[in-house]
Amino acid sequence: MKAVQVTRYGSPPELVDVPEPGITDPFDVIVRVGAAGVCRTDLHIIEGQWEQKSGVKLPYTIGHENAGWVQEVGAAVKHVAVGDKVILHPLATCGLCRACRDGDDVHCANSAFPGIDSDGGYAELLRTSARSVITLDDPLEPVDVAALADAGLTAYHAVRKAARRIRPGERVVVIGAGGLGHIGIQVLNALTSAEVIVVDRSADALALASDLGVDHVVQADGSQVETVLGLTGGDGAEVILDFVGEGGAIEDGVAMLRRAGDYYVIGYGGVLSIPTIDIISTEINFIGNLVGSYNDLAELMVLAARGKVALHTVTYPLDEYARALDDLDHGRVRGRAILVP
Amino acid sequence: MKAVQVTRYGSPPELVDVPEPGITDPFDVIVRVGAAGVCRTDLHIIEGQWEQKSGVKLPYTIGHENAGWVQEVGAAVKHVAVGDKVILHPLATCGLCRACRDGDDVHCANSAFPGIDSDGGYAELLRTSARSVITLDDPLEPVDVAALADAGLTAYHAVRKAARRIRPGERVVVIGAGGLGHIGIQVLNALTSAEVIVVDRSADALALASDLGVDHVVQADGSQVETVLGLTGGDGAEVILDFVGEGGAIEDGVAMLRRAGDYYVIGYGGVLSIPTIDIISTEINFIGNLVGSYNDLAELMVLAARGKVALHTVTYPLDEYARALDDLDHGRVRGRAILVP
Amino acid sequence: MKAVQVTRYGSPPELVDVPEPGITDPFDVIVRVGAAGVCRTDLHIIEGQWEQKSGVKLPYTIGHENAGWVQEVGAAVKHVAVGDKVILHPLATCGLCRACRDGDDVHCANSAFPGIDSDGGYAELLRTSARSVITLDDPLEPVDVAALADAGLTAYHAVRKAARRIRPGERVVVIGAGGLGHIGIQVLNALTSAEVIVVDRSADALALASDLGVDHVVQADGSQVETVLGLTGGDGAEVILDFVGEGGAIEDGVAMLRRAGDYYVIGYGGVLSIPTIDIISTEINFIGNLVGSYNDLAELMVLAARGKVALHTVTYPLDEYARALDDLDHGRVRGRAILVP
Amino acid sequence: MKAVQVTRYGSPPELVDVPEPGITDPFDVIVRVGAAGVCRTDLHIIEGQWEQKSGVKLPYTIGHENAGWVQEVGAAVKHVAVGDKVILHPLATCGLCRACRDGDDVHCANSAFPGIDSDGGYAELLRTSARSVITLDDPLEPVDVAALADAGLTAYHAVRKAARRIRPGERVVVIGAGGLGHIGIQVLNALTSAEVIVVDRSADALALASDLGVDHVVQADGSQVETVLGLTGGDGAEVILDFVGEGGAIEDGVAMLRRAGDYYVIGYGGVLSIPTIDIISTEINFIGNLVGSYNDLAELMVLAARGKVALHTVTYPLDEYARALDDLDHGRVRGRAILVP
Repeated sequence: MKAVQVTRYGSPPELVDVPEPGITDPFDVIVRVGAAGVCRTDLHIIEGQWEQKSGVKLPYTIGHENAGWVQEVGAAVKHVAVGDKVILHPLATCGLCRACRDGDDVHCANSAFPGIDSDGGYAELLRTSARSVITLDDPLEPVDVAALADAGLTAYHAVRKAARRIRPGERVVVIGAGGLGHIGIQVLNALTSAEVIVVDRSADALALASDLGVDHVVQADGSQVETVLGLTGGDGAEVILDFVGEGGAIEDGVAMLRRAGDYYVIGYGGVLSIPTIDIISTEINFIGNLVGSYNDLAELMVLAARGKVALHTVTYPLDEYARALDDLDHGRVRGRAILVP
Repeated sequence: MKAVQVTRYGSPPELVDVPEPGITDPFDVIVRVGAAGVCRTDLHIIEGQWEQKSGVKLPYTIGHENAGWVQEVGAAVKHVAVGDKVILHPLATCGLCRACRDGDDVHCANSAFPGIDSDGGYAELLRTSARSVITLDDPLEPVDVAALADAGLTAYHAVRKAARRIRPGERVVVIGAGGLGHIGIQVLNALTSAEVIVVDRSADALALASDLGVDHVVQADGSQVETVLGLTGGDGAEVILDFVGEGGAIEDGVAMLRRAGDYYVIGYGGVLSIPTIDIISTEINFIGNLVGSYNDLAELMVLAARGKVALHTVTYPLDEYARALDDLDHGRVRGRAILVP
Repeated sequence: MKAVQVTRYGSPPELVDVPEPGITDPFDVIVRVGAAGVCRTDLHIIEGQWEQKSGVKLPYTIGHENAGWVQEVGAAVKHVAVGDKVILHPLATCGLCRACRDGDDVHCANSAFPGIDSDGGYAELLRTSARSVITLDDPLEPVDVAALADAGLTAYHAVRKAARRIRPGERVVVIGAGGLGHIGIQVLNALTSAEVIVVDRSADALALASDLGVDHVVQADGSQVETVLGLTGGDGAEVILDFVGEGGAIEDGVAMLRRAGDYYVIGYGGVLSIPTIDIISTEINFIGNLVGSYNDLAELMVLAARGKVALHTVTYPLDEYARALDDLDHGRVRGRAILVP
Repeated sequence: MKAVQVTRYGSPPELVDVPEPGITDPFDVIVRVGAAGVCRTDLHIIEGQWEQKSGVKLPYTIGHENAGWVQEVGAAVKHVAVGDKVILHPLATCGLCRACRDGDDVHCANSAFPGIDSDGGYAELLRTSARSVITLDDPLEPVDVAALADAGLTAYHAVRKAARRIRPGERVVVIGAGGLGHIGIQVLNALTSAEVIVVDRSADALALASDLGVDHVVQADGSQVETVLGLTGGDGAEVILDFVGEGGAIEDGVAMLRRAGDYYVIGYGGVLSIPTIDIISTEINFIGNLVGSYNDLAELMVLAARGKVALHTVTYPLDEYARALDDLDHGRVRGRAILVP
C-alpha cells in the first residue's frame, strides 16, 4: 500500500510502497484511513525534534489524527465490526493499569502513539488497538472530524476541566484563537455561560472568534493586559486558557489572572517563571493539560454531531502530502489540512 | 493597657501604654488576649519587609495569631457572649462579598488583618470583628491553640485541599517538617491514609516527623530526589506539599512529582521556573495555598480537641516579648513561642 | 402605606393601610417594592396550609418573590445605597453560621423568610436584611426578574447541581415544563450540552419546551416511560429532574432512570417509595433540592442579563391583587403574575 | 477437580468432581483458589432467591469472594504471571464500555459475576478475566483478604464516597456493625476524622465497634433516634451509613439525618418510603451503593496491608463447606467463614 514515511530527519518524507499491516494481536484493528490531519507536530517530527522523545526507528509512517473505516479486526474484538466508520483516539492504551481504569487513560502506563512512536495514518491502512476506536454516527464523516482526534481533543480536555468550576458571571480569557483555541471557544460556548474574552495578535483570528460568538476580542498590541483588567473590573479573569504558552503570552496571562484563579497551560514552548510568593499570596493555580481521554473524544464527537463544534478543513489527496505540509508550514492553510488517502 | 508596638521599622518594638480599644461598630468584639503566637512574620514586619504591602501607620501593635476571652461585644453581636473562650480567625472579613458567601472568605474583597494592617494581639486587649471569633470548647485553652490561628491554619488548608484527591496507595512528599510542616503531617495522618514521605535537611525535624508517624524520612543531603524516586517505584509521588518554597526545594519537588500529580506551593521565597512543555507533557498542576477559611479553622479546632493535632509551645509573659522574638530569631524555640499577656 | 395582608386563614387577603416599616437593626434595608411575584404558595398560605410551619402571627403581608429599589439602609450597611435597583434573595440569613460561611446559606441556622414568616412584598415597602440584596444591572428591571427570586432560583439551583455531572452525550429528562420546569430547561441549555427530553401532560407546556429548544418532547399519555426508554437505547436517562414530585411522576421518573443515575426531587406532594434493593442494585441516587443560595441568585441574574433565561409575565397593579390570585388559581395566567405596587 | 455445586435450588449443594477449567479466551486467567468467603448471599442462592436474577444454569459452582494464586494465563495476558498471589475483583468486566473507561467498572455494560452467574470459587480452580486480578503483596495472604473481595469492597466503596464530603466536626451514624459495618467503621477511621456513632441491636456488635475505636455506641432499644439526636445537638448527623436497609433501620436513619445530609443505602431488604416534601424541605440525599470498582479493591488492599482494615475469620477445608454454611446460617460464625480448598 502507499504510505508517507519519514526516512531521514531533516529530509522531506517520501511516498513509498509498504506492506499492508496485518493483525498481530487479538485486540488489533486495521483501519482504512479516510482522513489524516496534517499537524504542526508532523513538521517537528520531520525536522527531528521528536527523535529523542519518541525513539521511533526510521523509516516510519507519520500521521496521528486519524479517522476511517474498520478493515479487519483481531480474534478478541467484538465491539466494532468490519465496515464501521470510526475515529481513533491517538493513544493505544493498555486498559489494565490504574490510570486506564480510572478514566485517565492519557496517563496509561503502557501506551503506544501511532504516528509518533509507531506507524501512523498517512497511509491507506493503519493498525491500532481495538481500545482506540470510536464509532462515528451519521452525519459525521472521517474527513470532517479527523483533526479533532488530537488538536481538538486537547482543547476539549482543557475546557472540560475548566468548565467544572466556571459559573455564570465568571470570565474566561482565551489566549490564542488559532487551531486549538477556536475549538476551545466552541467548547466553552457549549459547556458554560462564561463571559469569554479572546486575546490574539491576529485580526483574522479575532474575527473568527467573533463569528463563533464571544463577549470581547482584544488585539495583543501591547495594551492587552490593561484592556483585560479593564474588562474585569480591575480584578482579572477567574480562568485563563493559554493556547500559546510562549512568547509574552505567559506573563500576560498571569497578569490577567484573578486571585484564586486557574491558569490552564495548553500551548507550550516558553517557560513559566513566577515567584512562589506570587503564587501563594493570591492563591492561584497552574493546571497542566495534555490530550484528552477516550471518553473525552467520545464526548467531543457528540458535540460535533450536535453541530456545536466545527472545523474548517482543506483536503488533499495522499500523494499531495508535500503540498499540504508546505501549505501548513507557510501559513497558507485556513483551518486544518486533511490528507484523504 | 500594655501593648507591644512597632514604632520604627528596623528598631526593636516597645512595650508601651496605650488606650484600651473600644467598640466602634455594632459587629465589633473586644477580646482579652490569652495567648499570642510569635511568628517569623513578626520579625519580618519589624525589619520593615511588610511596610509597603500592609501600608499600616506606625506605631501599631503586632501579633496575628490570637486567642483569649471575649471582653465586650457590639450591639449587633448575638452569637458570642462576654466571657466566651475564643480563637480568632486571622482575617476580619466582610461576609457580604461573593467570596465570603462562597466558603472562601480568605479572598474576601474587604478584609482587615489585625497584627498586620491594624492593631494585633501583643497586648492585653484586641478589637476584631464578630465574624472572626470561634468559640473554644474544653479542653482547648488559648495558650495551646493560638499558634494554630495562622501557621497551623495554612498547613491545614493546604492538606485539606490535597486530601480530597489522595487515595490509599498514593504517596505524599512533605518538603520541610518545621513549624507548618509538622502540623501538615498531623493533618495528613488525620484525614488520609496516604503513604507519607518527609524530606528535610534537619535530622531533628526528621526525628520529630518520625515520632508523629510517617512512612519514610529522607534527609536532604543531595540524594533526596533519587531516594524519593526509589521509594515511589521511579514514578514520583502523586502529591508534593512544599512547605519551603525556596532554595533547591522547588526543583527537588518538581523532580519528585509523578505524572498527573499535584504540587502544593505553601512555603515561599524562591521562584518557580519550569518550561511549559514539562507542565503539559506530564500534565502536572501547581496549586497555590494561602491561609485557610474560618470554617477551616473551626475544623482544625476539632482536630485539636480530638487530640489529632498538637503543638509544642514555649510561653513567655508579655513583657518578655523581646526575649521571645530573640529566641525565635536565633533558633532557640522548640515548637512555637507564645506570649501570655 | 398600602399592603395586602392575610387577616384570617381561609378568607381572602385584604388591602389595608399599615405603618411603613423602619430600620430596626444596623443591617436592615428598606426596599420600595417594584414587583412581587404571585406564587401558588401564596394561595396555600391563604388557605392556611402554612399556619403550623411558619408560625407567623396574623395579620401579616404576604409576597416572597420581590424586587425593587433601596429606600433606606441601616447604619452598618455600606455595600448598597439608596436608589439601587435590587432583587431580594428570599431568605434573610445570619452570615455567621457554618452553612452561611460555606456557600450554603439556604441552610442558615438562623434565617427569616419575608412573605412566609414575616411581612413580605405585597406592599409598597418591605424590610429585609442587607445580606439579601442583589444589585440589578441594566437592562434588568424588577418587573422582569421578581419571579426568579424564588421559583426561578429553585430551578436554577437544581440544574446547577446536576450540571456538574452532565457530560455531552448524557440525557436529562425534565418532568414537568411548567413554571419551574421551563426555567430549568433554559438553565440546562445555558450550562450544559445535555440531550434534553421533556415529559408533560400538557401539549401547551410541550410546545413551550419546543420553542425553548429541546431534543425531544414526550406527552405523558400513559406510554411516556416506554417512549423515554426508547429514546435512551433502553437504558434510561443519566439525570431526571422531577419538577412535579407527585401523581405518577415519581414512579415514571424512577422507571426512566439509568443505572448510576441521579434523580433530582424538586416538585413535591407525593411519596417516594422504593425498595432498598432497587436503590443499591442499580446504585441510583435521590437528590433533594430546596431554593438556591444568594450566589446562585446572583448567577441566575447573570443568565437573565445575558438573555439566556427569560420569563413570561403578566402584571397587575397592587390593588388588583385579588384578580391576580384568582387568575392564578384558575389557570388563567400564562407565565407568571406580577404585582406592581 | 473438586467443586461445591448447586445442583437443585432448595437442596444442599454437593461436593462433586468436575473438569478443570481451561483457557478459552486470550484474556482468561485460571486461579488456584486459596480462600473463598462464605457469604449470606450463598445461602440465598441455594434457596433459589437468585434464580431469576442470575439466570445461571444448574449445576454450577458458587463462591464469589475469592483469592489465591495464578495457575495459568491466556495468550494476551502480560500483567500477571503464573504463581502470582492474587485477590479477584468480583466482576469480570469488559474494559471497553464507557463505564469501564470512566473508573466505574461496577456498571460495566458487559460483565460476568463468577459465583453468581458462572462458576465461582468453592473449588480448586476458578476461571476469570485477567482484568479481575489484583496482585497481593506480602504480608497479605489469600485467607486473610478473600472476604474483602465483595463484602469488604461494598463497605469500602460506600465509605470512600462519603469520605469525600466528611469534614472534621461532622458526625457519621453507622447503622449496623456486622460484617459490612465493622469494615465500614475501620475505613471511616482510616479515611476521615469524623465523629462516629454506631447503632446496633446487638451488644456484641457494639462491643466490637468500641474496640475498633468509635466515639459513641448506641443500643437500638427503641430510644436510639432520641439518643442520636441528643448526641448531635438535636440536628442529626451529616451522614448516615445504613448497612441494614430493612426493619425500622430506614425510618430511624432518616430521623437521625441532618438538613442537607446524605443517607447512604447499603443494606437492603426493606422499602424507603418518604414524602417528597420531606426530601426537598430539608434538602437531603439518598445515595445508592453497590460493590466497589477494581481500583477501590486495590485501595482496600493497601489499607489491609497497612494494618488499617482487618477481618476476623474462621477457616474450613473445602469438604466441610456444609458445616461452614450451616454455622453461618445459625449465627455461629464470629467474623467471616472462609473455605480453604
